[in-house]
Parts: sequence; C-alpha cells; structure tokens
Amino acid sequence: MAKTIYLDNGATTALDPKVDETIKNAPYGNPASTHSIGIEAKRALEEARHVIAKSIKAKDNEIIFTSGGTESNNLAIKGLAFADNKKHIITTKIEHNCVLNACKWLETQEFKVTYLDTDKEGFISLEELEKAITEDTFLVSIIHGNNEIGTIQDLKQIYNICKKHNVIFHTDACQSYTKTDLSAKHADLITLNAHKIHGPKGVGALYIRKGIKITPLAHGGNHEEGLRSGTVNVPGIVGFAKAVQIAKKRHVRYMAKLRDYMIKEILKIPKTQLNGPEKNRLCNNINISFRYIEGESLGSFLDAKGICTSTGSACSSHSLEPSHVLMALEDNHERAHGSIRFTLSKYTKKEDIDYTLAEIKKTVKKLRRLSPLARV
Amino acid sequence: MAKTIYLDNGATTALDPKVDETIKNAPYGNPASTHSIGIEAKRALEEARHVIAKSIKAKDNEIIFTSGGTESNNLAIKGLAFADNKKHIITTKIEHNCVLNACKWLETQEFKVTYLDTDKEGFISLEELEKAITEDTFLVSIIHGNNEIGTIQDLKQIYNICKKHNVIFHTDACQSYTKTDLSAKHADLITLNAHKIHGPKGVGALYIRKGIKITPLAHGGNHEEGLRSGTVNVPGIVGFAKAVQIAKKRHVRYMAKLRDYMIKEILKIPKTQLNGPEKNRLCNNINISFRYIEGESLGSFLDAKGICTSTGSACSSHSLEPSHVLMALEDNHERAHGSIRFTLSKYTKKEDIDYTLAEIKKTVKKLRRLSPLARV
Repeated sequence: MAKTIYLDNGATTALDPKVDETIKNAPYGNPASTHSIGIEAKRALEEARHVIAKSIKAKDNEIIFTSGGTESNNLAIKGLAFADNKKHIITTKIEHNCVLNACKWLETQEFKVTYLDTDKEGFISLEELEKAITEDTFLVSIIHGNNEIGTIQDLKQIYNICKKHNVIFHTDACQSYTKTDLSAKHADLITLNAHKIHGPKGVGALYIRKGIKITPLAHGGNHEEGLRSGTVNVPGIVGFAKAVQIAKKRHVRYMAKLRDYMIKEILKIPKTQLNGPEKNRLCNNINISFRYIEGESLGSFLDAKGICTSTGSACSSHSLEPSHVLMALEDNHERAHGSIRFTLSKYTKKEDIDYTLAEIKKTVKKLRRLSPLARV
Repeated sequence: MAKTIYLDNGATTALDPKVDETIKNAPYGNPASTHSIGIEAKRALEEARHVIAKSIKAKDNEIIFTSGGTESNNLAIKGLAFADNKKHIITTKIEHNCVLNACKWLETQEFKVTYLDTDKEGFISLEELEKAITEDTFLVSIIHGNNEIGTIQDLKQIYNICKKHNVIFHTDACQSYTKTDLSAKHADLITLNAHKIHGPKGVGALYIRKGIKITPLAHGGNHEEGLRSGTVNVPGIVGFAKAVQIAKKRHVRYMAKLRDYMIKEILKIPKTQLNGPEKNRLCNNINISFRYIEGESLGSFLDAKGICTSTGSACSSHSLEPSHVLMALEDNHERAHGSIRFTLSKYTKKEDIDYTLAEIKKTVKKLRRLSPLARV
C-alpha cells in the first residue's frame, strides 16, 4: 500500500507530537500525595484544569476529569438521575450511543425518557423540546455537534428554554470542542474529551455548573471534588490541556474549506446526497449517501486503497445495522445503508482529498455497475 | 535539594522507560473501526489482553479494560449489585476507600453490608467470614494485598468458603499484582491496575470469570463485551501489558530483601512497631508506628530532605483523620497518628534506604525531644 489517508478523525485522531512531548515530560506523582513529588503533580493538574476551564469560560472548580466522553456522558446523566427526585429526561434520537444507552438503562430503573425527533438535517425543534418538558423533567441532554452527520445545535436557544422551565441542560460536545465557540454560558453540564482533538485516549472532562448535585459513578478516595475517584491521570490530563492550547481557529477554517471542497466535488457524482446540513455543520464532517451502493462496500474498496473512512460512528461500525442517526432523519434504509462518513483533521492535505475523490468516483461507478437496483 | 528518594510507590510509580517507548509506538486507531488503522489497533489491543489474561491464568475474554483500580472495583461491586437480586455484601474494615465507599453508597440503595474485623496483623478470620454469609449474600469483596500495611490474604482459602456457599468472590489486587502469585483460580472477579507497576495512569482491568453477569457503569457503544463502553485506550493498554511483561520475580525478591533490611534497621529505634505482618506481606511495604510522634511531622521532615513517604493511603493523605486501616487493627489513635508508610520499587537503591534510615533516626530523636508525651 502506497500510503494511508486517514479520514476517520471523528472516530479518533493521531496524537500531536507536541502533546506526546508534554505527556512524556509530565510529573509522575500522585496529586493526592502531600510530599514534593505529589505537589508537583497537583500543580500540573491544576494548571491543566485552568486551561480546560478557560477554554469554555468556566471556573476551574467546575471541571472534573474523567476517562473520556462516554464516562462523562454517563456521569452527567446517571449522576444527575441518582441525585434528583424527578424521573423524566428529554434527549434526541440522534445522540451518541452512550447517551442513548445510558437513557435506555435508566428506563429499566423507573425513569421515563422522551427521544425528540429532528428535521431532515438533524436539527431539533425548539417548540417540540418546550412541549416535551413536564413537571417531572429534571434533565435535557442534547448533543452539540452530531458525530455522524455534523449537525451543530443552537445551544443558546436550547439553554434558554431549559432555564425558563428550571430544567438542567447537558450537552455532549465531544465532536464540537475546539471546533466551535463552545461556552459554559450555554449549558449546565458539558462533556469534553481529548482523543478527538489530537490528545491522548482515556481522558475526558465534565463541566458541572457550580451548585449542581451529581452522584458519582466511581466512589473512592474522593478525588475531583468527590465526584470522580481514582488516581488522577496527570500525564493524560496535561496532554489534554496541551491539545486544547494548540487547537487554533485557523485549523477550523482550514478544515471547513477542505470540507466544502470535498462536498462540492462529491455531489457532482449523480444520485449522491449530503447527509446533515450545509450550514451549522462540524468543520471536519462530510457524510454522503450514494444511491444503489452499500456504504460498507465503498468503505472496503477505499480501505484497500489506503483510505480510512467510516460507515457510521466507530462505536457501532462492527454492526451492519443501519445508522440510528440516519434512520432518525428519514425512515429510508437505502439511504442509511449507502452512507459513508469522511472526517478530516488539521493534518488532512488537499492532495489526500483529491486522491480520495478520484478513488470514490472510480469505485462508485464500479459498484453501481454491479448493483441490480442501479440497472432498474 | 540534593536528590529525591521516592518511597511512595504504593501511591503511584514512575513509568518504566520501556513502557513509555511501547506507548509511544502504539497504534493510534480506534479498535472499533473496521479499516486497516482500526484493525491494527484491535490487534494490539487483543495482544495486550492476552498478556494480562495469561499473567493470572485467565481466558482472554475474561479481561475487561477500565480506567483503573477504582473503576474496576466500582464496576465489580456495583455492577454485580445491579445485576443480582440478593442484597447482602461482605467486605472488610481494611479495604481501600473505593471499595468501602462503593459499599457505603450501596447501603443508601437498600443493600446491606457486613464489614469484617481483622486480627492485629490485618488478617481476616475465615470462621467469621463463613459465619457472616447468609442466604441473601451475593458478594464477598476482600483486598488481596493491603495498600497500607501490606497484609496479603489467603485468596485460596477465602475462595473455597465462597464457592461452598455459592457466593461470588471479588478481590482488589491493585497492590499485589505482579508481586504475588495471583491466579484467576482463586477468585471470580479480580481488580488490576497499571500505574502501581510502572505502567501508565488511567488504565486498569477487571477479570470477570466467564458466566458472571455484571451491569455496566458506563453504557455506550458496547466496547469490551458491552461491559465497559468508551473509545478503548489502546496506547495505555499496550503500555499496561508491557509493564506486566517486564515485571520479574527477581524484582520481587530484590524488594523483599530491601524491605526486610529496612524493617530490621528501623525497629532498632526504641518504641517503634511494625504495622502489618512480618510474613505474607507485600514485598515493597513497610509501615511503622513511632510512639510519641505524629506521622505527618515525620513525613514533612523527611520530605524536606527529599524523601517522599506516605502517612496513609495517598487517597486520603490530604486528610488528617487517622488511617481507617490502622484504626481497624487496634483502636489506638496514637499508633495510627504515629504511622508512616514506605513503599519501595525495583528502582529503590540500598543507599537510598541507608540515607533514609539515617534521616529517620535523626528526625525521630528530634521530634521526640519536642513531644510532651515522650517526656512523661
């Protein structure tokens, strides 16, 4: 294989060498220790916390470090469920599986969950959200930037409705963090993680607005304000902060430009459709349905040419079930099966995209020639 | 400060450079992705799983990776509690805080917990354990090597009692892993972690005997057999496996010899007492009570000389409460307050111990001169 073109940065990203260097030089001590080695680790931890807090205009003590996005989402949703007397949650049909499955589990524990529909571009209806809120609603959890189709919801408007009804608002910002103007002013709980932004795996954070009560998932030595026990992964956290510090707005502009170019070129292929919106879309997300073609087949052919893509969220890509997100948009198995996701990073080059476009064109032509449906 | 002598390896350890190198070279892909980069990561993950499984004579699919010991302990205890209809747990008074606090939280959720006493060396009574088992008992959770006083329980005998009564046995082996002959033959659930054995922070594992049902704490994309969702931290896990591979029996013998030397020399100081047993003791643990002296004072003086020690488990070392472990052994505040823990590693040198011994002797003399109690 000549080279590898990695267009699956929505699944995970390569570590930035600067982050790697930072992790390597991080102190190894346990920040809970009171001796000099511990104090050095504690200082590095608190500096990292400040970087993360500042990046979303939060206070330092509103940031809790976790092992990643899935843990943060579970901690936010279940932690609040166990700490509150109310029993109703509102979320959407296009959440990441960790939010959906946390909610489904809570349904087995006597909670009620409303799953909001979206329009065909993946946007929720603010009217429907407001209508769904009852006296028993304690939480609204809505993903910020959708991992599959890139739709970016308007957090400010959602939060205004939640505040009006005194309901806590959580957003999963794993995909949008550092790629949008994410602010703690527009949510009570925000899930963040490191490995989508060239930071280390196994590190995430949860912003918890001061005053909100959460029951921990992991009880123990009362680390992280008692909300997340376990020896704190200082090197990983310091690496996370570095990844945030080196994420620049120019990277976002660069990715958005490449994204728009790629979308424009792919849509020149007949019977292709962009999934998700053109505007208010994650800067690195391209999701396309090719009629008459299985996404898995196209993905496999591209993989054979060294091009890594995704036919769903990475979490469920071993499953051949159609994407629950695409299915929520429109009940159309063909569209869902025929979709493929390309997610860019600051490392993606225009020549990689051109190579990919050429391979897509060839492969789509070949696969359609084989498709009985295309010949009808 | 001339140099730093790190004698707090029970709190955490420095990364072995070989582990660091392994992590650096680990694939960055998401093992849930189906393309070549994902497959490469999946392969590395499964190789690492095999190393961990083999190290405790378990099957590969009985090992679930987590973010560390605290998460593994919480997953074992709460995961089983949520999956079982019975309501009674047996544990001990000398568990790590994460086991104790998980149990205490379950008591608020209508579970009942028996906290077994130990003898003055920290060993549980097998008779008392058997007597405590009722029809409603579903879990016995007992720490293997105690983190504070080093007592190593006899897992085989405990497991025989549990099997006889059809109760699941979990052990927290964070401190004993690679330092003892730990085997999956002697427990149903075993907690392991990486950062106590020169591996990375933020990585642990739970051995779950095939057939045992556990409710996950983190729901999501169904990673790790559906028991622990979240993008798998492949670099960390690969580093964990490397740490296990390079842990040698000769390191254990080396540490045990240094430990015995240090204990012998310290006990020459009048009115000192070894906490925990002489035999069946973790190879790297030394815990001493110096009468008339506060552990915190001695620790601070040693820290000023560059010697890092602990006056309890690192988790609670910011608290001035006496150690719950020492208090469980004997209701003696003076002994608990006057205790200090030294935990060695394969990197500890005899000259470091000699330097430390000299500083201890000087400091103990000085502090006792200041103590009103010592003058009585």
